[in-house]
Amino acid sequence: MAAGDTRDSLRRLLELNDDSLQQILSDMTVAELSDGWYELNADEALKIFLALDQDKRGELISELPTADQQELVTALSEEATRDLLEVMDPDDLVDLIQTVSPEVRSEVLGHLSGEARREAEFLLRFDDDDAAGLMTTRYAAIREDLTNAQALAFLRRAPEELETIYYVYVVDKLQRLSGVVSLRQILFAPDNRRIVDIMERNVVSVRDDTDQEETAKVLEDHDLIALPVVDRWNRLLGIVTFDDMIDVIREEQSEDVYRMSAIGGEAEDYLESSVPRLIWRRLPWLVILLLTGTITTNVLAGYETLITRFAFLALFIPVITQTGGNSGTQSSTLMIRGLATGHLHFRLIGRAFLKELGTGLAIGIATGIIIFLRSILLPPGVGTLEAVTVAVSLSTVVLFATLLGCLVPFFIDKFGGDPAVAAGPLMSTLIDVTGLTVYFEVARVLLI
Amino acid sequence: MAAGDTRDSLRRLLELNDDSLQQILSDMTVAELSDGWYELNADEALKIFLALDQDKRGELISELPTADQQELVTALSEEATRDLLEVMDPDDLVDLIQTVSPEVRSEVLGHLSGEARREAEFLLRFDDDDAAGLMTTRYAAIREDLTNAQALAFLRRAPEELETIYYVYVVDKLQRLSGVVSLRQILFAPDNRRIVDIMERNVVSVRDDTDQEETAKVLEDHDLIALPVVDRWNRLLGIVTFDDMIDVIREEQSEDVYRMSAIGGEAEDYLESSVPRLIWRRLPWLVILLLTGTITTNVLAGYETLITRFAFLALFIPVITQTGGNSGTQSSTLMIRGLATGHLHFRLIGRAFLKELGTGLAIGIATGIIIFLRSILLPPGVGTLEAVTVAVSLSTVVLFATLLGCLVPFFIDKFGGDPAVAAGPLMSTLIDVTGLTVYFEVARVLLI
Repeated sequence: MAAGDTRDSLRRLLELNDDSLQQILSDMTVAELSDGWYELNADEALKIFLALDQDKRGELISELPTADQQELVTALSEEATRDLLEVMDPDDLVDLIQTVSPEVRSEVLGHLSGEARREAEFLLRFDDDDAAGLMTTRYAAIREDLTNAQALAFLRRAPEELETIYYVYVVDKLQRLSGVVSLRQILFAPDNRRIVDIMERNVVSVRDDTDQEETAKVLEDHDLIALPVVDRWNRLLGIVTFDDMIDVIREEQSEDVYRMSAIGGEAEDYLESSVPRLIWRRLPWLVILLLTGTITTNVLAGYETLITRFAFLALFIPVITQTGGNSGTQSSTLMIRGLATGHLHFRLIGRAFLKELGTGLAIGIATGIIIFLRSILLPPGVGTLEAVTVAVSLSTVVLFATLLGCLVPFFIDKFGGDPAVAAGPLMSTLIDVTGLTVYFEVARVLLI
Repeated sequence: MAAGDTRDSLRRLLELNDDSLQQILSDMTVAELSDGWYELNADEALKIFLALDQDKRGELISELPTADQQELVTALSEEATRDLLEVMDPDDLVDLIQTVSPEVRSEVLGHLSGEARREAEFLLRFDDDDAAGLMTTRYAAIREDLTNAQALAFLRRAPEELETIYYVYVVDKLQRLSGVVSLRQILFAPDNRRIVDIMERNVVSVRDDTDQEETAKVLEDHDLIALPVVDRWNRLLGIVTFDDMIDVIREEQSEDVYRMSAIGGEAEDYLESSVPRLIWRRLPWLVILLLTGTITTNVLAGYETLITRFAFLALFIPVITQTGGNSGTQSSTLMIRGLATGHLHFRLIGRAFLKELGTGLAIGIATGIIIFLRSILLPPGVGTLEAVTVAVSLSTVVLFATLLGCLVPFFIDKFGGDPAVAAGPLMSTLIDVTGLTVYFEVARVLLI
């Protein structure tokens, strides 16, 4: 599985003659190919792509980043494009259509044969970020009145293209979802039992306009391989499968990280985002943080005469604010994750507070001792009283920030907010303002 | 799916008589129960747990946080514990055994019947964080020389406890894994074909000591429902299934976020971590950040006379460093995610740099104008020349930080490091040091 090896060998393959190339490629998995793909330039990529068989082409292109997909689709001959599109799963095909440029899009749609185009156009009607945007229409559905043996015979004749036959959905005459039966249940049940008597009536499904993260959560909570998508009349539209949900979970993870880094909007391919779009996602939060951050200017203005008299105090401002911020982030991150995973909830706030009190005291004292030693021993070098001022302030700020980082997420969560998005800016301003006040008040007491 | 409703109703259920309670609980899914569980106190939780049927008890306890598991296991009678353990899947059972306290653990093991104890003791031999730590021994395996019809008959008689029968593993006489055949292939193939002729020989598997994140990646790359785990002689030990992998992916996500927040170690239940353990995970990084951060003290020491003369300069130090840090974090986060998801790689560094140059210029100019207006219009209020000094410095720092945030992750990734862990501390020190230097140099030019 070492990615380095794959890369080397993909490049090296190009030195082989066509027969050996095809032979080796047929033994490689799509995962191995896509892992090494990025090292190839456009010509090399095209050559290897053309040496793959049709099925592998379809699977591989679904796995590649948008830029590589576009490059390939544009470089392929008309006939090769048509053959490629025919073998792709409809949901992957629609993803491809949605990400390529408008010119490539109309070219792609023009190449589709009748049935594939109908499938694609049906799926294109739905929003990209909803359950329906992730679904495939290639599911197995049967009527309630079949016997078990008939159902099994139906499945054994079912087209190979179905995404899964491990769940079979049961629909009434109006295509409304009335139950689900697993292939396992069909195998275990006697031949003459009717499906309506075997099927699970309490079928978990989502509406077509369910948000994709909510859809992932439903699939995950119920440990399902596939989840049916229905319209508002409960008519079965398609299914979403667990492998697409893993991508959604990863996307959701990116968006959490973005929010923590003051970036708005959804996870998207960086190179696809225009500069105005990047500015739009980043500037608003940055300005909010800047404006709340300038409260520190007012705090410091109150101590301007103290700074003029003891200029060394200014030298430690960044250390005080950054270390306070870091220790606050540590405790708030642990609370946010605990609240998100369900390990923590509001009635445990007391236990969490006591733990953070112990941890904050220890970390505060340790960082205080370290900054004291660093201040008197290393350049620029300050006197003992000055070092004590900095050390006492830092210890206090670290303890305070740790406790604030513990409490703020609990209260934001309690009142229905998202702790991840709200804890950051609010906390860093609170920590800076309080931290600087503590610092200069300690200085006033000790130095004057 | 609204969690609030479930919570309310779980509490309200306790007012019902036993028959109605059991009736309603039998209609609820395990996901609904576990979502609302945390609102219950120990007595309420026990009462509802005892009103569930055996199977649901087993499924529910696997989903609950460790603290709740312990509480329940300790409160149950001996007989109820034994019955509960009998119905749990071996992998969930072993997870439970590994997380409870040593006293509860020996109690649990003592309650197991012969076969279940053998399974549990076999699984307990492996490391919690490896592929083997996640596997179950309840898979379907057959010999190569069976015919298709025999295989199907075998599966129809297979015990219901098997985690999946959708993949059937083929082993030789020494229990070595020689292939895999999907239930689907068995259904599609003619009755008299031999399994050895249908099976896929190129079976994807992992070694028992494969790290759990690597295991999740293999399963995900190949879109598998289950993945076989083998020992070093390729003997089949068990399988890991996709639902356990989703938990691993979520854990991995927590660990990424921890690393970005300067917290070391693995994702674990916060309340289970002792105070010394919390200190150990947080203090080292905090001290490293503190010590590298004190470089700013030396930088500022070089401008001590300037600060004494123009004390207002000190007032904007936090704004300059925090805004620089925030804009650097924005661009580095986008690069880190792009590199992690494969959308970006080193050969695209030029395109990324140009995008960030445009974005950084725009954001820099915008934040500069905002700080200029804020400085002259709102208290504490500074003169025009002072405001220009701050604005020009801020614009420059934001541009510089944005470009640094773009380049550093590419180079760390290029030389084999983890951009997520290395970009943070290194960058924030670089940004602070350069930002403060720019600020005071601009001040020197404009003010003196």
